[in-house]
Amino acid sequence: MTLAYKGTAYHGFQVQKNALSVAEVFQDAVQATFGVRYDVKGCSRTDTGVHARRFVLTLAVDSPADASAFPCANILRALNAALPPDIAVLDCAEAPPGFHPRYSATGKKYCYRIWNAPVRNPFEQEFCWHLPRPLDVNAMNAAAQLLVGKHDFSAFCAAGGKVSDHLRTLRRCTVERQGDLVTITVEGDGFLYNMVRSIAGTLTDVAYGKLSPENIPAVLQSLERSRAGATAPAQGLCLEEVYY
Amino acid sequence: MTLAYKGTAYHGFQVQKNALSVAEVFQDAVQATFGVRYDVKGCSRTDTGVHARRFVLTLAVDSPADASAFPCANILRALNAALPPDIAVLDCAEAPPGFHPRYSATGKKYCYRIWNAPVRNPFEQEFCWHLPRPLDVNAMNAAAQLLVGKHDFSAFCAAGGKVSDHLRTLRRCTVERQGDLVTITVEGDGFLYNMVRSIAGTLTDVAYGKLSPENIPAVLQSLERSRAGATAPAQGLCLEEVYY
Repeated sequence: MTLAYKGTAYHGFQVQKNALSVAEVFQDAVQATFGVRYDVKGCSRTDTGVHARRFVLTLAVDSPADASAFPCANILRALNAALPPDIAVLDCAEAPPGFHPRYSATGKKYCYRIWNAPVRNPFEQEFCWHLPRPLDVNAMNAAAQLLVGKHDFSAFCAAGGKVSDHLRTLRRCTVERQGDLVTITVEGDGFLYNMVRSIAGTLTDVAYGKLSPENIPAVLQSLERSRAGATAPAQGLCLEEVYY
Repeated sequence: MTLAYKGTAYHGFQVQKNALSVAEVFQDAVQATFGVRYDVKGCSRTDTGVHARRFVLTLAVDSPADASAFPCANILRALNAALPPDIAVLDCAEAPPGFHPRYSATGKKYCYRIWNAPVRNPFEQEFCWHLPRPLDVNAMNAAAQLLVGKHDFSAFCAAGGKVSDHLRTLRRCTVERQGDLVTITVEGDGFLYNMVRSIAGTLTDVAYGKLSPENIPAVLQSLERSRAGATAPAQGLCLEEVYY
């Protein structure tokens, strides 16, 4: 299934103790629909407040009997009726054998959005980081290009991540302005914990002259988180697409 | 001053007992900034949940001394710092003598937004009415054109409005589709209580064949609210512009 969700009210996708997650609310809807709390596997954990336009998950129904009793179109309608307005099931299909939403993925696309105007936008405040001072988008793009390719992204990985291999390939890293909205788009084979938000923080440091694009290779090579920019706030981040 | 606000959390603009309004929150910010709860006058009341992109208001500061102590640019910054994220002051200037945000207005523009796709959009649910079945936008436009001009809009006015003169001139009434988003835009010299939402409800009745465009003149002439369509939900409505 593919979900869209506004992450503002949730502590990420993954079920957590003492904090409301998208997966928990989704499983409540599954329980209401099927009478059983079937296992849910997601394509990514996502942080508190992060959004998703196309989040892929699998629902492990018990037996083929369940599947035939509930055709996919009915499952989609029933779950959407049971889910709150900030979560929607966009599509639903039987998964191919062996499919895993996380491990079968060949890549992901994220956007990080910045509202770049003197005054904040009340309609965009839950989806954007507000930065009042004008951003130098050309400098951001020059720096972004130096992140594309296969690198050890340790300098862009928050402590607390559980993977030891920090080698990732960025296929795309671009910065575009449309009026007051500046969008950073990254696409890659995989992303470390807080990697996109660290990239966004670093590119804004470049935009404000705290770093120059020429510093980027040294930041990467240092493998030190402290050499890159701060982690940009969660609400600007959105998982746009997962590739298989 | 011009405000932008997301109306979701508020019971309209106007101060009310036992319900949070934009004006009350704005006056809290005024109190925090000036130490005085100066009188605020708005261009319109707006209903619970209705949004505004450019809402005009005046703030009656006590004396010229206050105005000179707080230049407009400083007032704008101070109020924005004191206001919550869903309200912003976009601009601030000294009002011309005799200016009244409501009575000096020569017209207003509203948009009513409909998300017209089988599945709701979690990112648009606070700003759109979700209608799953495809809308016939051509039929809506044909009906909309018959509302343009000077008419007694009693059939499009909710009971409870206080004005007795229901004659209003619509300068524009158009319906546009951009992908899954259908936007009704109305512009006129003034609007009755719930008039735009009644127009939106009536145009969707036309879109679904419950009314035909040719019925519109008879609905108008009837002066009966029951002849027009239902009042569309508040969250789709946004005050876009006030003209002076």
